Amino acid sequence: MCGIVALLLAAQDGLASGDLFEGLGLLQHRGQDAAGIITCGHKGRLYQHKGNGMVSETFGKQDLLNLVGNMGVGHVRYPTAGSSSSSEAQPFYVNSPYGIVFAHNGNLINTESLRNYLDFDAHRHINTSSDSEVLLNIFADNLQKTGKARINEEDIFTAIKGIYDICVGGYACLAMIAGFGIIAFRDPNGIRPLVYGRRPSANGYDYMFASESVVLDVLGFTDIVDVLPGEAIILSKTSVTKRMLMPGKPYTPCIFEYVYFARPDSIIDGISVYRSRLAMGEALAAQIIKKLGPNHDIDVVIPVPDTSRVSALQLSYKLGIVFREGFIKNRYVGRTFIMPGQQMRRKNVRRKLNPMPLEFSGKNVLLVDDSIVRGTTSQEIIQMARDVGAKKVYFASCAPAIRYPNVYGIDMPSAKELVAYGRTEDEVATAIGADQVVFQDLEDLIASCTVFNTKIERFEASVFDGKYITGGVTADYLTQIENLRNDHAKGGQELASPETIGLFNSFHNK
Amino acid sequence: MCGIVALLLAAQDGLASGDLFEGLGLLQHRGQDAAGIITCGHKGRLYQHKGNGMVSETFGKQDLLNLVGNMGVGHVRYPTAGSSSSSEAQPFYVNSPYGIVFAHNGNLINTESLRNYLDFDAHRHINTSSDSEVLLNIFADNLQKTGKARINEEDIFTAIKGIYDICVGGYACLAMIAGFGIIAFRDPNGIRPLVYGRRPSANGYDYMFASESVVLDVLGFTDIVDVLPGEAIILSKTSVTKRMLMPGKPYTPCIFEYVYFARPDSIIDGISVYRSRLAMGEALAAQIIKKLGPNHDIDVVIPVPDTSRVSALQLSYKLGIVFREGFIKNRYVGRTFIMPGQQMRRKNVRRKLNPMPLEFSGKNVLLVDDSIVRGTTSQEIIQMARDVGAKKVYFASCAPAIRYPNVYGIDMPSAKELVAYGRTEDEVATAIGADQVVFQDLEDLIASCTVFNTKIERFEASVFDGKYITGGVTADYLTQIENLRNDHAKGGQELASPETIGLFNSFHNK
Amino acid sequence: MCGIVALLLAAQDGLASGDLFEGLGLLQHRGQDAAGIITCGHKGRLYQHKGNGMVSETFGKQDLLNLVGNMGVGHVRYPTAGSSSSSEAQPFYVNSPYGIVFAHNGNLINTESLRNYLDFDAHRHINTSSDSEVLLNIFADNLQKTGKARINEEDIFTAIKGIYDICVGGYACLAMIAGFGIIAFRDPNGIRPLVYGRRPSANGYDYMFASESVVLDVLGFTDIVDVLPGEAIILSKTSVTKRMLMPGKPYTPCIFEYVYFARPDSIIDGISVYRSRLAMGEALAAQIIKKLGPNHDIDVVIPVPDTSRVSALQLSYKLGIVFREGFIKNRYVGRTFIMPGQQMRRKNVRRKLNPMPLEFSGKNVLLVDDSIVRGTTSQEIIQMARDVGAKKVYFASCAPAIRYPNVYGIDMPSAKELVAYGRTEDEVATAIGADQVVFQDLEDLIASCTVFNTKIERFEASVFDGKYITGGVTADYLTQIENLRNDHAKGGQELASPETIGLFNSFHNK
Amino acid sequence: MCGIVALLLAAQDGLASGDLFEGLGLLQHRGQDAAGIITCGHKGRLYQHKGNGMVSETFGKQDLLNLVGNMGVGHVRYPTAGSSSSSEAQPFYVNSPYGIVFAHNGNLINTESLRNYLDFDAHRHINTSSDSEVLLNIFADNLQKTGKARINEEDIFTAIKGIYDICVGGYACLAMIAGFGIIAFRDPNGIRPLVYGRRPSANGYDYMFASESVVLDVLGFTDIVDVLPGEAIILSKTSVTKRMLMPGKPYTPCIFEYVYFARPDSIIDGISVYRSRLAMGEALAAQIIKKLGPNHDIDVVIPVPDTSRVSALQLSYKLGIVFREGFIKNRYVGRTFIMPGQQMRRKNVRRKLNPMPLEFSGKNVLLVDDSIVRGTTSQEIIQMARDVGAKKVYFASCAPAIRYPNVYGIDMPSAKELVAYGRTEDEVATAIGADQVVFQDLEDLIASCTVFNTKIERFEASVFDGKYITGGVTADYLTQIENLRNDHAKGGQELASPETIGLFNSFHNK
Repeated sequence: MCGIVALLLAAQDGLASGDLFEGLGLLQHRGQDAAGIITCGHKGRLYQHKGNGMVSETFGKQDLLNLVGNMGVGHVRYPTAGSSSSSEAQPFYVNSPYGIVFAHNGNLINTESLRNYLDFDAHRHINTSSDSEVLLNIFADNLQKTGKARINEEDIFTAIKGIYDICVGGYACLAMIAGFGIIAFRDPNGIRPLVYGRRPSANGYDYMFASESVVLDVLGFTDIVDVLPGEAIILSKTSVTKRMLMPGKPYTPCIFEYVYFARPDSIIDGISVYRSRLAMGEALAAQIIKKLGPNHDIDVVIPVPDTSRVSALQLSYKLGIVFREGFIKNRYVGRTFIMPGQQMRRKNVRRKLNPMPLEFSGKNVLLVDDSIVRGTTSQEIIQMARDVGAKKVYFASCAPAIRYPNVYGIDMPSAKELVAYGRTEDEVATAIGADQVVFQDLEDLIASCTVFNTKIERFEASVFDGKYITGGVTADYLTQIENLRNDHAKGGQELASPETIGLFNSFHNK
Repeated sequence: MCGIVALLLAAQDGLASGDLFEGLGLLQHRGQDAAGIITCGHKGRLYQHKGNGMVSETFGKQDLLNLVGNMGVGHVRYPTAGSSSSSEAQPFYVNSPYGIVFAHNGNLINTESLRNYLDFDAHRHINTSSDSEVLLNIFADNLQKTGKARINEEDIFTAIKGIYDICVGGYACLAMIAGFGIIAFRDPNGIRPLVYGRRPSANGYDYMFASESVVLDVLGFTDIVDVLPGEAIILSKTSVTKRMLMPGKPYTPCIFEYVYFARPDSIIDGISVYRSRLAMGEALAAQIIKKLGPNHDIDVVIPVPDTSRVSALQLSYKLGIVFREGFIKNRYVGRTFIMPGQQMRRKNVRRKLNPMPLEFSGKNVLLVDDSIVRGTTSQEIIQMARDVGAKKVYFASCAPAIRYPNVYGIDMPSAKELVAYGRTEDEVATAIGADQVVFQDLEDLIASCTVFNTKIERFEASVFDGKYITGGVTADYLTQIENLRNDHAKGGQELASPETIGLFNSFHNK
Repeated sequence: MCGIVALLLAAQDGLASGDLFEGLGLLQHRGQDAAGIITCGHKGRLYQHKGNGMVSETFGKQDLLNLVGNMGVGHVRYPTAGSSSSSEAQPFYVNSPYGIVFAHNGNLINTESLRNYLDFDAHRHINTSSDSEVLLNIFADNLQKTGKARINEEDIFTAIKGIYDICVGGYACLAMIAGFGIIAFRDPNGIRPLVYGRRPSANGYDYMFASESVVLDVLGFTDIVDVLPGEAIILSKTSVTKRMLMPGKPYTPCIFEYVYFARPDSIIDGISVYRSRLAMGEALAAQIIKKLGPNHDIDVVIPVPDTSRVSALQLSYKLGIVFREGFIKNRYVGRTFIMPGQQMRRKNVRRKLNPMPLEFSGKNVLLVDDSIVRGTTSQEIIQMARDVGAKKVYFASCAPAIRYPNVYGIDMPSAKELVAYGRTEDEVATAIGADQVVFQDLEDLIASCTVFNTKIERFEASVFDGKYITGGVTADYLTQIENLRNDHAKGGQELASPETIGLFNSFHNK
Repeated sequence: MCGIVALLLAAQDGLASGDLFEGLGLLQHRGQDAAGIITCGHKGRLYQHKGNGMVSETFGKQDLLNLVGNMGVGHVRYPTAGSSSSSEAQPFYVNSPYGIVFAHNGNLINTESLRNYLDFDAHRHINTSSDSEVLLNIFADNLQKTGKARINEEDIFTAIKGIYDICVGGYACLAMIAGFGIIAFRDPNGIRPLVYGRRPSANGYDYMFASESVVLDVLGFTDIVDVLPGEAIILSKTSVTKRMLMPGKPYTPCIFEYVYFARPDSIIDGISVYRSRLAMGEALAAQIIKKLGPNHDIDVVIPVPDTSRVSALQLSYKLGIVFREGFIKNRYVGRTFIMPGQQMRRKNVRRKLNPMPLEFSGKNVLLVDDSIVRGTTSQEIIQMARDVGAKKVYFASCAPAIRYPNVYGIDMPSAKELVAYGRTEDEVATAIGADQVVFQDLEDLIASCTVFNTKIERFEASVFDGKYITGGVTADYLTQIENLRNDHAKGGQELASPETIGLFNSFHNK
């Protein structure tokens, strides 16, 4: 998962970098691995600054001042397992044709054939294993085919249509053409999110795109609208043009944004993430009653901070059981170093969460988390609860059991590493050491979202149901992904090193 | 406020730096300005690493490996306004006599006379404006007077007694004498916190001191005990010796640790911070009923995250009103840069907190914060609440009105900058734009703590009542502090620069 | 002026970066502003490392290990006044077509029309003011026109021929096509130097190109041959192919390489730089006799270190006058900082050279320098000589009077800034404060070189005679250059800053 | 060997750091390992900046601006084998008594007993293996014994006399007492050099001390005088006081300063280094005639650059043989990295020197170097000469054979590693592969210096004759040094690492 922003200020002499920096900071939860901004200044000259690490570490004031120009694109990266090296910071750039800058959130499932096309037909060198570089070059190839010295909106819409025709997957994209403007488009099913808004200024309206509405909200933009699935929007210096290029496909946003990924104060595809989480809490309460009965012996509801707090609170009201902040989160935890001779007395999760014995001792506790993936963290949390005296530990997940890999840009382990893969609910409970596990029902999860926007009928929920909306996700493909992720898990550390200075990112951040 | 740790491993060939690093990370909330560790290795040689910024930014793996030795002292710094330059990272060191390392949390109120003593009588050069350097040199001077080549515990107790006799203020101190051991002591009133514990190892017990119990707890130490007011403890390679050097003074821990500063999962002077906050919430609920009556029109209780969450939740239960996470905190907010031409459209607090309109729109909201200091942040928060549709905004503070300066190490503005200075409760409400303000009653606050440890009869609560336990806080002294803090506020930025490379800290962190 | 290297190792699993690093270090005198290497590894993936400053500062061991692959290209940069921003480190790269890496030494005189062509006809975005980016894109455009998925040597020769047809100026170029091989070519007049050689290895021959033969010499390459004017050479994994693409143009290497730029231990176009300097010394001796007469009163010959030492020594033998190291060079002089209140008591040249009073006091000295450009340094040196007691100061220049701008890649000021512009020899003497100035005769300078390789009949010597071999250097062009260099001199400092992070170089060297 | 400077500006508001920085740059040849400056500003506050590496890398403009104050001390370090860790950058500091800053060039031979004294009698912790820390603490201990709150010149002279009484070795020292002034003194035999001078300013005279006169010369200081052996000089704000504290000892400067270490443009103890090198060349010529006979077959004299150039030139005139720059020095050579699989085809010296075949081919060459130490470099140089065609290679050394260790601060290997240890001249020739070796005669070397200052009758020349002027250099001591240097050579690399962050230097230079 990644976060993307783009901005075009109405003021010709404005400096877009300040708001782009703020915007990336507000999307930091979507990717903490690398950050980058490219702006476009006078006579179409492009300026770049990228770095590994957090937004606030990567950019200093002078870096922002060096990013000249009133429009630009920014990106924060969360590495997708098995599909990207550890240092390819976006936005990416190709100079032919026109000078195109590109930032992307998502994942393609047919990159192998696209890479072959780019090599043999488009004669374009792809230097990374990043999908984003592939998408950028497909876009560039389509624009190049126009053979025009100066392109217009029509040419760009045609080029994007060309992407829709051959690129399969989930993708939200922001591009900038040097001296021309900003371009936004979203995959035909709207799997990855993208919104935009406007802000009045002395010179007319500023326009901004972002992965989440919270960026626009905090930066003073209004009239916030989702880019629709299969829709493209072009901002030039003089106009805003939008067009539906791929109508008629199912509108299926990724449901994991609501469960876990997005900030609660964002509204995605018309649905408040916060409200959906309240609804998930209510539905999960019902599920608990269904499973444990109305005479269950739960004494206290305790969230695993921070994501599940909203759901857990509402769940507690629904159940009529007290809610307690039983785990204290250490907000400053950094990397862990294993010192020679230092015994690993404590589990890694203990560095992040500390239990309040008062809330566990002698009680039957219901722990609420957003989801259960590998199960290792859940297991450690449950053990911590028992260590401080919990009698029984029930574990509830706001999401259903995850049993299938994600192929649209969310970093998930291979299927075999998922604790619910090939296990029943009870077997999962045994595996993680809980007295009982309660999963959200998938229909309830979907209803928790659709209730706020009835236009959305389905969601991309393949990690729960194995149904991949785009088509093209064959058994072979899944096997290949599986192997890649396993290999990555084993050998990734060593392989990453020689690639740390890739072509697009010669930065020397420590 | 600062955080301090010290560790002596039983294993002669152990490496103390790993646990000291972890410990400082767990105290990061007490100071994010600078961090440092000094260890003592073979033949008494000392090793140091310090830097500006967060613990995780300051120390890399190799830095920790370079910190040789099985004992050491660490420090995280929160600059005390008006009394320290921006770059004097602790621990501090003097080589004469014996090689003494020193880390300190607190503040002295009679430094001027102590500085004169050190200059004219002890002939010791003080190169910074830090109290800690003064304390270290008083300690060194006392030890030097022994005239001994090799000191023993008795000498050290005598030296600490000498500190008690002349150093007035709140201070928790950790020292290390090269090749000898670790020394801990706490001011005669126990204003600043300090605890210790032990951990079994193959070679005997490891011993660790820390500002807060959470460090010991997470690192596997048990038998956690407070260092008592006026007590000193000496860890040598072969023994643990403790002595009450200053009996009979009132035991008065700083109450602000419970209100705001300490982590909820710490236990300070026998009182669980978490429990005290639950109790504060209950007491505040009663205060609200008292002020607004049982038929108040509050629709929802909303905490200002993160500190007040525990109290606010309990308060909501007591009032029987729903609790909601109405503000979303941006955990990644960094420094703000003012770009040329960028309009400051949004207030700074807006970068840190984002309101959920759903929870405010059309409602009478009760916002709960830990305290109100300058009132500017409260004002901005209240305005945000109104901007998203709140009908009425009540504002409750878990702490009483702050009307006096702090002189024992908590960074507070000058009295005149406090919004409650010279204002009634209603005038504060007007000043910050609330419909009503409800402050905690001081007696209730104290009771919220003493209920859990009846041995503590009083607290250092001078910011609320103007009673300074140590004596020596004259009107003249307060005027001087007032001027210093005002000056600092105005000219501090410029003055800081030439001091950025102080004598004890030639680090080049960017 | 810049320095370039390229290497193809016979061993598939070899690491080219080590020798490329050494090679750049040996060319450091050709450019100390920035350094960069791009290598090509398995499956055509490219790896890059660039930075501002010296080669030894830019590359650490890990950086070299990260530069995977058995072939690569390197560059050291010396900024050409008025034509490049301060931070565009080479090699440059375009991904379309094929992935092309490019490093270049020289300057074009018709970039304006080439830029228009690239914009309107080739639709390629040029993001810097560097000629090298223009040349690379002309090359890329020519290759793209083949429309082939896989190109061969014939296609590449055709593309280079296309460059010769439209690119006017002096240029020595090294390119690398991802997964294919290394390409070298030199402008039709051979203005800028380029040599290559081979080295036996277990797997066959390694091949290396470099600006100067000293690189090949030190790294163990033999069979060193100049790339001929208008010739192109292609190294693929399996073959070495060379072709004369532009026969019949005058072979006119830049004579300034011999006078000043190249290392004395290099052989360029068959002429030993060292030998040519010995010959220049002899010829200059004759010129001195001619001007001052056989009964001149010179007491001692003193070189201005380091370049003129070889010539000055031979000159002293010829004149039969003692040679003395009268100036001591400070090899460690760095940037100068003007501190507030610090009086500029000493001239800048004084930081670099210190006179030995013994060798000047009461003597008539003949100072020998390689050339006189602005005259300001000469003036300061002469003043220093007088300050330590020289009676008369004669100043001899191994080069003739410089009266015209250089347009082929040597960084020279605008004509009006040249001290010899519009001045006779005697007027130059007055201007720089010498008793007499003696310039080398141009014919003698040429003879000092041609004597060692009679195949070279002419040299590019336009700074002396104003004859620009390539054609196309119109009065208008010179006026434009003049203005640009003047502007640059005035405003350059401020303008440079916002460009410091260009698209091709996001490095953060301090 | 190290370099030291100190400056006191007459202007109270002056900034000493600028000239100190320039001064250290001019002493860079004396130590390239680390650099540091400490200044003293308003109210005696001290400011510090230190770093590993070259002066120009260590200090930026802001660093110099942060070094507030009109007086200060600076140091460049050359590590003395076996006696210092790799990161203890000077100046050093102790705060008790008074705040003393200290920089030192030289070496003590009785540190073991001094360390015992400091531990058991003075109770001062010494944290490094540096002699300088020992000397500083002896000085501090002596001052402390005065028991005064404010000391005067008399007290300081007494303290320095106390150093002379117990510290045996070669040492030139610069100290600064916070708020008081600058202090300089030199060991009783004047082994290590130290000069001072003055410069008129608007407020009176500025005074500066430096290891070599070139610093004062370039910075505009005049009236340059040597600090005499056993003399101390105190600069306070109001006076300059000098006193001979240790009269009657032999005046024996280190002769290696003239042979190799000092810049030729320095005058040390009244003797021009440049002139002494000319004289050495003449004497060596006579030695060559003596050894090879007047009918020797030498064709050309070639210096090994840079030090021997002055002597070799004069030697060539004396012999009437042509002088040639047969080796080109690579001025930019940096660290060498061994890449995996890279064959070490070339010797390391080849990276630094490149032979001109023209000057060697078919000739009998006389190579002139300043000295022969281990012999490995000489051997490689001779082999290079043969590789490019030299018929015979004679090797002449401006210094006599080195057969004894240095104990006064020059970094020399252990005796057994010296090629001349236990070898005759002819055996040395065989060992390094020369046809003949000619060493300077010691008497001639001494005469080459004394001729310019007849007041100096002897020199410290122990590496040649094994006579240690200070006394105290016992066989036991030499054995101990021998072992230390051997150990250091073997284990140094690993041991250095954990000490890289010492107490006095927490800098993070890469």
